[in-house]
Amino acid sequence: MRFDIVTLFPEICESSLCVSIMGRARKSELVEINTVDLRKYSHDRRGTVDDTPYGGGCGMVLRPEPLFECVEDIADEDAHVVLMTPQGRRFTQEDAVRLSRMGHIVLVCGHYEGVDERARQVLFDEELSLGDFVLTNGAIAAVVMCDAIVRLLPGVLGDDESSVEESFGGDERLLEYPQYTRPFEYRGMRVPDVLLSGDHEQIKQWRLEQRYVRTSGRRPDLLGQG
Amino acid sequence: MRFDIVTLFPEICESSLCVSIMGRARKSELVEINTVDLRKYSHDRRGTVDDTPYGGGCGMVLRPEPLFECVEDIADEDAHVVLMTPQGRRFTQEDAVRLSRMGHIVLVCGHYEGVDERARQVLFDEELSLGDFVLTNGAIAAVVMCDAIVRLLPGVLGDDESSVEESFGGDERLLEYPQYTRPFEYRGMRVPDVLLSGDHEQIKQWRLEQRYVRTSGRRPDLLGQG
Repeated sequence: MRFDIVTLFPEICESSLCVSIMGRARKSELVEINTVDLRKYSHDRRGTVDDTPYGGGCGMVLRPEPLFECVEDIADEDAHVVLMTPQGRRFTQEDAVRLSRMGHIVLVCGHYEGVDERARQVLFDEELSLGDFVLTNGAIAAVVMCDAIVRLLPGVLGDDESSVEESFGGDERLLEYPQYTRPFEYRGMRVPDVLLSGDHEQIKQWRLEQRYVRTSGRRPDLLGQG
Repeated sequence: MRFDIVTLFPEICESSLCVSIMGRARKSELVEINTVDLRKYSHDRRGTVDDTPYGGGCGMVLRPEPLFECVEDIADEDAHVVLMTPQGRRFTQEDAVRLSRMGHIVLVCGHYEGVDERARQVLFDEELSLGDFVLTNGAIAAVVMCDAIVRLLPGVLGDDESSVEESFGGDERLLEYPQYTRPFEYRGMRVPDVLLSGDHEQIKQWRLEQRYVRTSGRRPDLLGQG
């Protein structure tokens, strides 16, 4: 899989995506991640890519030319081009699964006040938002989305890092059960007896119950979607 | 405001939070952001902070001792301690606003399979999730949350970067209107006449209509919450 992240802050993406699991996946060539500096497609020497909005208002808007030229330069016909914007549909684990099956994704990061509407109407296959909050730049949102997708590629996660029973994964949308590790007793608090019983069926049952208890308490909306 | 981000990947946080607007805010001492390596609180020389789960299953769980000792070390009584976990409530702009009024926030990043339940029940004032997706580590989620909060602090955003009319901000939960900038015509596509009319009242009216059109098309759920 190939990822191109188009941003005004390539250094943010590069530094976040070169360590730990993502760094290892890139070194093993399980995924190719390129960061593309949108300023390379500026029409002036200062690297300007934005301008004031027509009709007034504060903030700066990304001009159409650099966006068109950049996307046309890096995205072939098969590429799936995504705009990251608070106006988009909220990104979920289902999107991560769907996008992890694509061969080539181009993630374009938004800007303070957004992108020129003409680029928006023409260039993108879909618009996604990380959530209902506002960020100073889309680069960190792109890093999050890239991470959520790449970790699903075959071979990326080691055994220690993966789990079949994951919140939001699988058919049942349930939160995870409580986890305990050593020490058995800490500051007077002990691990529940059932987890030490060695009775796998009983443990499985307890964990499933805990998932329902937790989900109905914290995220009843997930049960409605089951 | 002071932020402490507790993570196994301090380098991810540091590199993302030292550039652009966040970097400038730190240099101007509008905010103090510290990254704390949880491994410093390990009880062995190798820096181990996790162990296998009681009751079996894949993945590794953060042990209680380093978490307790770390939080007790850095969080005074007034600190607001947040666990970042997919099990938490979904972070929204309202949380960003609320948290931006705190004096001291400690963000603790989750781990592959989570944290020991005993730490969870005792140490945290709240648990927040970035969204319904799974990441390889919580560090990038912490960066996003930190960015969303810090940009709201007085003096952090310049005039060019801020806007009163923001999606998810203010009383009305509406998506933004379409933005246009130069050139006036690009590849045959022109800026809507109204934006060049100079009639501020008409522009305001058009933009508000567009916000309703866009929100009802893309995020009808926001209108229900208004």
